[in-house]
Amino acid sequence: MIVNSRPLIVVANRGPVSYDRGAGGERVVRRGGGGLVTALRGLLERHDVTWIASAMSAEDRVVAAEASGALDETTRTGASYRALLVAHDPVAYDAYYNVVANPMLWFVHHSLWGLSEQLETGGALRDAWLDGYEVVNASFAAAALDELERQPAATVFFHDYHLYRAPRIVRNARPDATLAHFVHIPWPSPDGWTALPADLRLAVLDGLLANDLVGFHTPRWQRNFLRSAVDLAGAEQIDEQTVAYRGRRIRVVAHAISIDPAEFDDLAGSEAVLARERELEARRPELLVLRVDRTDPSKNVVRGLRAFGLLLELHPELHGRVSMLALLDPSRQEIPEYTSYLASIQREAREVNERFGREGWTPLTLDVADDFPRSVAAYKQFDALLVNAVYDGMNLVAKEAPLVNARGGVLVLSENAGAHEELGEWALTVNPFDVLGQAEALHRALTMPAEERRERIEAIQGHVRSHDVAAWIDALLADLDEIAKGDDE
Amino acid sequence: MIVNSRPLIVVANRGPVSYDRGAGGERVVRRGGGGLVTALRGLLERHDVTWIASAMSAEDRVVAAEASGALDETTRTGASYRALLVAHDPVAYDAYYNVVANPMLWFVHHSLWGLSEQLETGGALRDAWLDGYEVVNASFAAAALDELERQPAATVFFHDYHLYRAPRIVRNARPDATLAHFVHIPWPSPDGWTALPADLRLAVLDGLLANDLVGFHTPRWQRNFLRSAVDLAGAEQIDEQTVAYRGRRIRVVAHAISIDPAEFDDLAGSEAVLARERELEARRPELLVLRVDRTDPSKNVVRGLRAFGLLLELHPELHGRVSMLALLDPSRQEIPEYTSYLASIQREAREVNERFGREGWTPLTLDVADDFPRSVAAYKQFDALLVNAVYDGMNLVAKEAPLVNARGGVLVLSENAGAHEELGEWALTVNPFDVLGQAEALHRALTMPAEERRERIEAIQGHVRSHDVAAWIDALLADLDEIAKGDDE
Repeated sequence: MIVNSRPLIVVANRGPVSYDRGAGGERVVRRGGGGLVTALRGLLERHDVTWIASAMSAEDRVVAAEASGALDETTRTGASYRALLVAHDPVAYDAYYNVVANPMLWFVHHSLWGLSEQLETGGALRDAWLDGYEVVNASFAAAALDELERQPAATVFFHDYHLYRAPRIVRNARPDATLAHFVHIPWPSPDGWTALPADLRLAVLDGLLANDLVGFHTPRWQRNFLRSAVDLAGAEQIDEQTVAYRGRRIRVVAHAISIDPAEFDDLAGSEAVLARERELEARRPELLVLRVDRTDPSKNVVRGLRAFGLLLELHPELHGRVSMLALLDPSRQEIPEYTSYLASIQREAREVNERFGREGWTPLTLDVADDFPRSVAAYKQFDALLVNAVYDGMNLVAKEAPLVNARGGVLVLSENAGAHEELGEWALTVNPFDVLGQAEALHRALTMPAEERRERIEAIQGHVRSHDVAAWIDALLADLDEIAKGDDE
Repeated sequence: MIVNSRPLIVVANRGPVSYDRGAGGERVVRRGGGGLVTALRGLLERHDVTWIASAMSAEDRVVAAEASGALDETTRTGASYRALLVAHDPVAYDAYYNVVANPMLWFVHHSLWGLSEQLETGGALRDAWLDGYEVVNASFAAAALDELERQPAATVFFHDYHLYRAPRIVRNARPDATLAHFVHIPWPSPDGWTALPADLRLAVLDGLLANDLVGFHTPRWQRNFLRSAVDLAGAEQIDEQTVAYRGRRIRVVAHAISIDPAEFDDLAGSEAVLARERELEARRPELLVLRVDRTDPSKNVVRGLRAFGLLLELHPELHGRVSMLALLDPSRQEIPEYTSYLASIQREAREVNERFGREGWTPLTLDVADDFPRSVAAYKQFDALLVNAVYDGMNLVAKEAPLVNARGGVLVLSENAGAHEELGEWALTVNPFDVLGQAEALHRALTMPAEERRERIEAIQGHVRSHDVAAWIDALLADLDEIAKGDDE
């Protein structure tokens, strides 16, 4: 595959860099370790990238005001790129981020709306959409258009559900620009979108369909998007990966995001991880069930803990021999649904421990903290890993943890996680709502013959090593080259 | 269209007839007025029909035990048919009806499951499925097979979500039988079905795909079914209305059920309706907003009452001039979700009245009763009719009420009601979750110029008169003839 270096304007809500003030008042650069930044490292290393992101910190806003252009930055691995921070109106940003993008779009994408009594759209949502989501998207679009003035041949590469409107604004101003968008979360079926009023869901689709290329992690989300474009926006399906809309053709692709195996190999042997692994090993039971998630309702933590409780109820012979460790990164605690979800998690954990715990054996340990070395240490130590997401665009834990696991651990995987389309045949598949099914899968994992466990995990490891994040980037770049070539013709 | 008379075995949970004991201990026949019976009257009148249904009353069970064969019965219009009642095991029937069919399948079909914390499938559901749903379906299948012994050339015509497994049992025993199934409720997208564990949703599809013909009310439900068959059961799509599955071809069609206009013309002039209309007229306000539903969460009553409250909040000029009448037929009160939904309806109504009511003006009247003449009287009197269902297979109120309305009333109609695909262009369309949008639509309806109101309602009346229930039956019969012809070839 020949990939040409090309100017790229990456637009994403979160950037690879953020600024702060040190103790002495000096400006400090913090390089973000976020998933998207890690995943797009290959782009930064091989292309001429300008990354446009929201100014998050107070110092970011100072930088955004100072630097009329962008700042030159380098990645941890030494690649250089330009960072351009956009300072949004704080009230608009709050409506954009905390009302529209999260929870509303997030909940629609993950089918988390209860459609009976809870959901109510209307005035407040419309106001947040108009005064928040549209406004922040317009700021991003303006920044992208400025960059396009500077680099007319650049491809603009939008990311995720924060930026559905920006492509349309850029397209209207620059009919010939090359625009691409990657959606990192599940795309629901057309009916799922009827949770939103018709004009809002059309605005989402009309924005995305202003791109030349729209990407998803799996064929399932790709197919749902194609159906949504046809059913809800009146697009015409041309072939398996092309629709026509408003006189243009849009290519819709699926490429599975992945991880950098070398990074995890290094991490697994790092002192930070080894130290935590020693702590874990000193206290671990004979059998360890692990889950590692953000405390997000889409991750389905409560039912997972309940399934572990049911495992203990059904299998008293496991009492004292098995424990569950839930490493949970606290998430979006500004949003009421998330605060109450975390409370539900803690309540469920307490109930399991009160019911089954005894002197010298705590069945369930909940660790609500952001401690990645500890997660990697636990990745190495699990016997069963539970990933039971209600919906998940991909779920990288399902790839990271088996890769470094040293005990022939078994992956128990939700059929609604994007990773299931790749790893399902070597995992034990569970339905996210079937708590008994999850308890049975955990039991099967913990009692599986060593030979079968080894075969399964080696197959997963082989797949992840041969389908790494570099392969994902290469596939995206090939797509970008192809649509650019199409534009040139 | 040439329709041949043919032997038909109709299988539906509810039958056209039920038996009781009179005051003197004698057997009394009650002819059911249920929607399905009314709709299928054309079948009974023109074909040699045996109708298999569940024995519901104590006397039904006596009849079922006595009559080794079926009883000869006649419809109100004098058509003769055979009624065959099946007495199920009461424990199995309870699990089948009150756990699996309602609420579970009903809620899946109407997207009423909140997928975050509420839904949990597993042990209890599986037990109810195996010991209830499968058992009752097997009883129905056995009765249908007995009838097929007697009438080997008959077509078996299953109805609705109670009977998804019976066709597979009949098919296995009689590979060459002609089987058809009509589903009267919405068919969700493939993702909607992941609310159920994989084996259960496959059992649903595998059962339905044992038929030669599967029918729905609208192209939207038809399309969702075709996608579900392909995505979830691995069927192969042959053309726009055909799939191949397990070596056979299944035709999937959409025909909109409707009403008998002559029946409503007669009803509208009947003494029972006129008496109730006089009561209503004596008390009605200048402007009357009406809704007529079962108290089912899928009907979206709570949000509808809230929208009426919002209308009053936004438009004080309407205070004292407009009232809402909600005629609600109490539904499925054995099921906890339905009891609590009725309580929510009553709470919401109380809140609206406490907030806006005043001496001499009650904004909202809730009438929880089964009184059809009163509904028809209200049909004649409304100025705005609110049908805001979360999802609805068709919604016949949207056809019945405008047909007999005498005031140029405006239909406010949910985009997720099947009727919307036919009547949407003449209704004011609302999204079921957008309460503000519903309030705005009610206001637009109540202030619409008389000329526009007249044009809209006349268009609806014309459509309903030319697309009546006889047309629906004719379309079904033509399909049955066609598949029977295909079988003969």
